[in-house]
Amino acid sequence: MKPAEGRKRVVLEHIQPQVDCGRTPARRFLGDRVAVSAAIFADGHDHVSARLLCKHHSDPDWSSTPMTALPNDLWSAEFIVDRIGSWSFTIQAWVDHFDTWCADLKKRLAAQPDPASPDPEIRDLPPQDIPLALTIGATLFDRIAARASGDDATQLKTIAASLRALAGNKSALYQYPLTAQQEELAARYPDLSFASTTEQEMRLWVDRERARFSSWYELFPRSTSTDPARHGTFADVELLLPEIAAMGFDILYLPPIHPIGRAYRKGPNNSTAPNPDAVGSPWAIGSAEGGYQSIHPKLGSFAEFDHLIAAVHANGMELALDIAFQCSPDHPWVTQHPDWFLHRPDGTIQYAENPPKKYQDIYPLNFESPDWRGLWDELRSVFQFWIDRGVRVFRVDNPHTKPLDFWEWCLAELRRDTPDAIFLSEAFTRPHVMYGLAKRGFTQSYTYFTWRTEKSELQAYFEEITRPPISDFFTPNLWPNTPDILHATLQTGGRAAFQQRLILATTLAASYGIYGPAFELGEHVPLRPGSEEYLHSEKYEIRRWDRRDANSLAPLITLLNQIRRTNPALQSDLSLHFHPVDNSQIIAYSKSAPATDESPANFILVVVNLDPRYEQSGWVDLDLKQLGIRHNENFEVEDLLTGNHYLWHDRSNYVAIHPSATAHIFRIIHMRTE
Amino acid sequence: MKPAEGRKRVVLEHIQPQVDCGRTPARRFLGDRVAVSAAIFADGHDHVSARLLCKHHSDPDWSSTPMTALPNDLWSAEFIVDRIGSWSFTIQAWVDHFDTWCADLKKRLAAQPDPASPDPEIRDLPPQDIPLALTIGATLFDRIAARASGDDATQLKTIAASLRALAGNKSALYQYPLTAQQEELAARYPDLSFASTTEQEMRLWVDRERARFSSWYELFPRSTSTDPARHGTFADVELLLPEIAAMGFDILYLPPIHPIGRAYRKGPNNSTAPNPDAVGSPWAIGSAEGGYQSIHPKLGSFAEFDHLIAAVHANGMELALDIAFQCSPDHPWVTQHPDWFLHRPDGTIQYAENPPKKYQDIYPLNFESPDWRGLWDELRSVFQFWIDRGVRVFRVDNPHTKPLDFWEWCLAELRRDTPDAIFLSEAFTRPHVMYGLAKRGFTQSYTYFTWRTEKSELQAYFEEITRPPISDFFTPNLWPNTPDILHATLQTGGRAAFQQRLILATTLAASYGIYGPAFELGEHVPLRPGSEEYLHSEKYEIRRWDRRDANSLAPLITLLNQIRRTNPALQSDLSLHFHPVDNSQIIAYSKSAPATDESPANFILVVVNLDPRYEQSGWVDLDLKQLGIRHNENFEVEDLLTGNHYLWHDRSNYVAIHPSATAHIFRIIHMRTE
Repeated sequence: MKPAEGRKRVVLEHIQPQVDCGRTPARRFLGDRVAVSAAIFADGHDHVSARLLCKHHSDPDWSSTPMTALPNDLWSAEFIVDRIGSWSFTIQAWVDHFDTWCADLKKRLAAQPDPASPDPEIRDLPPQDIPLALTIGATLFDRIAARASGDDATQLKTIAASLRALAGNKSALYQYPLTAQQEELAARYPDLSFASTTEQEMRLWVDRERARFSSWYELFPRSTSTDPARHGTFADVELLLPEIAAMGFDILYLPPIHPIGRAYRKGPNNSTAPNPDAVGSPWAIGSAEGGYQSIHPKLGSFAEFDHLIAAVHANGMELALDIAFQCSPDHPWVTQHPDWFLHRPDGTIQYAENPPKKYQDIYPLNFESPDWRGLWDELRSVFQFWIDRGVRVFRVDNPHTKPLDFWEWCLAELRRDTPDAIFLSEAFTRPHVMYGLAKRGFTQSYTYFTWRTEKSELQAYFEEITRPPISDFFTPNLWPNTPDILHATLQTGGRAAFQQRLILATTLAASYGIYGPAFELGEHVPLRPGSEEYLHSEKYEIRRWDRRDANSLAPLITLLNQIRRTNPALQSDLSLHFHPVDNSQIIAYSKSAPATDESPANFILVVVNLDPRYEQSGWVDLDLKQLGIRHNENFEVEDLLTGNHYLWHDRSNYVAIHPSATAHIFRIIHMRTE
Repeated sequence: MKPAEGRKRVVLEHIQPQVDCGRTPARRFLGDRVAVSAAIFADGHDHVSARLLCKHHSDPDWSSTPMTALPNDLWSAEFIVDRIGSWSFTIQAWVDHFDTWCADLKKRLAAQPDPASPDPEIRDLPPQDIPLALTIGATLFDRIAARASGDDATQLKTIAASLRALAGNKSALYQYPLTAQQEELAARYPDLSFASTTEQEMRLWVDRERARFSSWYELFPRSTSTDPARHGTFADVELLLPEIAAMGFDILYLPPIHPIGRAYRKGPNNSTAPNPDAVGSPWAIGSAEGGYQSIHPKLGSFAEFDHLIAAVHANGMELALDIAFQCSPDHPWVTQHPDWFLHRPDGTIQYAENPPKKYQDIYPLNFESPDWRGLWDELRSVFQFWIDRGVRVFRVDNPHTKPLDFWEWCLAELRRDTPDAIFLSEAFTRPHVMYGLAKRGFTQSYTYFTWRTEKSELQAYFEEITRPPISDFFTPNLWPNTPDILHATLQTGGRAAFQQRLILATTLAASYGIYGPAFELGEHVPLRPGSEEYLHSEKYEIRRWDRRDANSLAPLITLLNQIRRTNPALQSDLSLHFHPVDNSQIIAYSKSAPATDESPANFILVVVNLDPRYEQSGWVDLDLKQLGIRHNENFEVEDLLTGNHYLWHDRSNYVAIHPSATAHIFRIIHMRTE
């Protein structure tokens, strides 16, 4: 069957950014310049023009930007996303007969025979029908004028008339008759009758700045009491806020704050036969005292929670809640909505199992329930409940055990009214599943960083996640430790290992977090050899921490957060670039940020000794272009960790790093004066 | 908005083969095994199953093939395309509760406490609720039985009953209760209630074998007369057919056979002021004697054309016609359909121009005509006219000067009734345009091969075009020369250059062609220095060729075509692999074909000296896996050009090639006996 309009001669292909054929909106951040590119071409030799159309979902009309031709039929244009939320863009491209005419006329004029030339070759050139070409141009301008109005139309008609006059007024040697302004005026009224557009509108989702650049601090509120005999409260947390803010964090993240189930409650060190006074795991949610929309009575009241949020904000931070959709057998839903759980032939409810392991303290939700619609609505309402209390940041526990279609719906529903909500996906699972969750709306994601310790695997993984296609939808958040994960490196590497993993986390990605105070106090003893669980894990018992410990890493954390705040290069992931070092124990990478109205261009080079035991040294082979440095140039590097300055030269430079120093974080200082 | 069914938990991504998000059917050849792959995963830990559904457009039902899980959530399956034409495939994937239950039961059984064990750890294992698991299994089998019928249903019900009996019959130590046959029976009746499918049906187009593997010979029929005073005819061509067939060609391609225009007729060497007896260019189509559906009277009648086709077929070949949509000013359409041409303000018709160059003997068609529908229909009918006379192969001149939408429609229309038609795109233009034409239905395409002469550029280009995504829609046809292109290499390189380009063309791709007899007779003089035009080009005058010349390359051509016919490795493009050689003047590459019922596995290694002047030597560093050879193995290579045998060993082997020999085409002979 023929198309409705067979005269659309322009083809549009390879439109970027585009995730999974446009199924998933590409993700950008507030203020980003979005570079759109496409292959655009037509049959034959006629010129093509193209423009990018974009709009925020609240805009009534498209904004238009001319696209620029690059080599090999590629075209590009940029637009700035100046509001958060949903954006669309499309491309319009057409055969531009006006532009073709201008170019051809210039070629004809350059080849016209000149009777006055002393060169017989130029005198005898074949005629170029220039009056005819001028007449054709006049007709084109008539049509352009018909698409314009007001002054523009008048001007365009005048040009048409002058071209006609010129054509009638036989000349020996014609000059090009249009000014750049006249060409530009005509180009403003293209003939779009046969313009092609992308088959679908492409979508973008734009998040606020904190989705790109954030520093998370996780603590257990119940461990914050200054009185060892007393369960910590929101009020106790408030007392710590100035200290946490002073360390430079901007998101305070609390494990679930809901009532904890009694049935099959776990005791210290995951014991299944605890004392009656065991506090239980905050992730076993729900009891007679309530569920996802209730607060554990020992933490405080709703009024105290509201007060905490206000205090967090007053300290320049935001509060993140943990939403973990898995019920204790005591959760009210178990009796209110029995059909949200799987029932076994013996009448019992199916608890979580990974045979032969049993987790009888947890009932998973059955997403194949006939009442899946009711279940979805209720889960969404849990987020909405806390959003309505002022929470904007959520760490979502095990999202990969709930259907991806559910998340796509739920997060889109929530974002419609709350586009500034941030959702961190706590999915430690296979790559496709982790990426699938990001595509369905999670703002940030936990990563494999924790288990990437060798130089080659760090480089391969970070090159994967900081470049398209992955970076178009996935934003990493790096955690050197979590309450669940004490990596072997930290168990055995001593203070140098803690420093190393912290420096990597704070500089490899723009978002990171630590589970504190276990991290800054160097907690490193596992439940048993070979385990990644903490001994006396805070998941199962209240801990007391001596935040005044002289060995605390808090000063280093404070310095690193300060460096991150003052160096825009460290506030986004996309410029990450690895530089070769002739020592497999030393990793070097740079990040950069272009100059803006507020700040000059910023170049950071990080060099880390991955060996926590011995000094390592080697030659860094800099990719100078990444650092804004020219071949054979002298430049200065300032180590932001020590304040030391070094004079470096050209690409090859020597480093030697003792484990006690762990790393250099160099700011590049260009010495040239132009 | 919630989806219609929220319980479809499986996600399908990255489906291959897929061209441009499914917009373009992926291309395969008759008999190909089509490997389909996808990322398939669900939330949580339940097992997933998947099947590939495929059908030829004429099949009423889908055929189903189970998919196999690979690492990292990738799945694959294959199907054989045993008919030409349009195929569809899709994937169905679901959470497989039966498979999950089997796997979990095995784990439970492996972990059950054994009261008879001497090992207290095994005696005291926690109970595994096996009777409950068996009861759950019985319920599953009941449901599976309800989806089956006949004997299968009866058997499945019996299994359900036996599981129930086993559950009731308390045992100290349970055994796994199912046989592999029983598991397989159950798997035949999956629960597809919540199965996911691909968002669209994926399409394939399957061409016949000659679309993949073909050897073209182009000649000008008017130059085939044995009497220098007489214009050659179809009957003269017939006399040459045994010779051309004996050289091993399977497609005889003729430049346009239509009446040639008189207006602005070009004379010898593209002269614009020829003698009145000039024969003109066959590409200036149309005169008072007719146009695209007429035959040049001096070539013969329709009856003689029909006779020629029959004779071509009798010689085991096919005839290819050249369809060049560009009219001479004398073409009947110019008066019959003036609105298919662009008219200028002075009333004249716009001839072809590339300012300042003019081609007044050619009127391009105006695809922006208001009667574009009539024009499209007429162009299609030109192909149909010759198809109806038995032609199945078309070489299409300059398709890139007609809209891509036109080709998509036209070729699809023609293929609906004539799926065995082959269309060769003669587009020497930018990559996106060439690939765009292939995506819109051209079977084969001319390439940049003619201008790729250095080792590095040959390797880069052929790696691009013989691998996905390009190879999923683009099939190269390599031409060392054409009537338009006498490359500098042939002008200056002597016989060695001709041999080299011929060997490259016949072995780098499965389809190639030569413009003969200019090629085999070593025609190498350009119109002027720096030109790629032939002096005394056959495009503008009748030439006489001495096919009996002792220096003719016909024996080498014959040998190469024989090698191609007897070595399946050379009959497809996809296995091409380059092997490093420590000399930039020597290029080495291999191709292979797997064993089939008809022939053993076939491995060919080609080593070409790219220097037509001097002997070159070097060490070939073989990628042994590509040749089916093991590390440190001895093997024999037989040079199919000379019959010489050499004993080679392991990966590093020495070659020295004189320009007179030009190349080795080695067949690998494995010496191991297992």
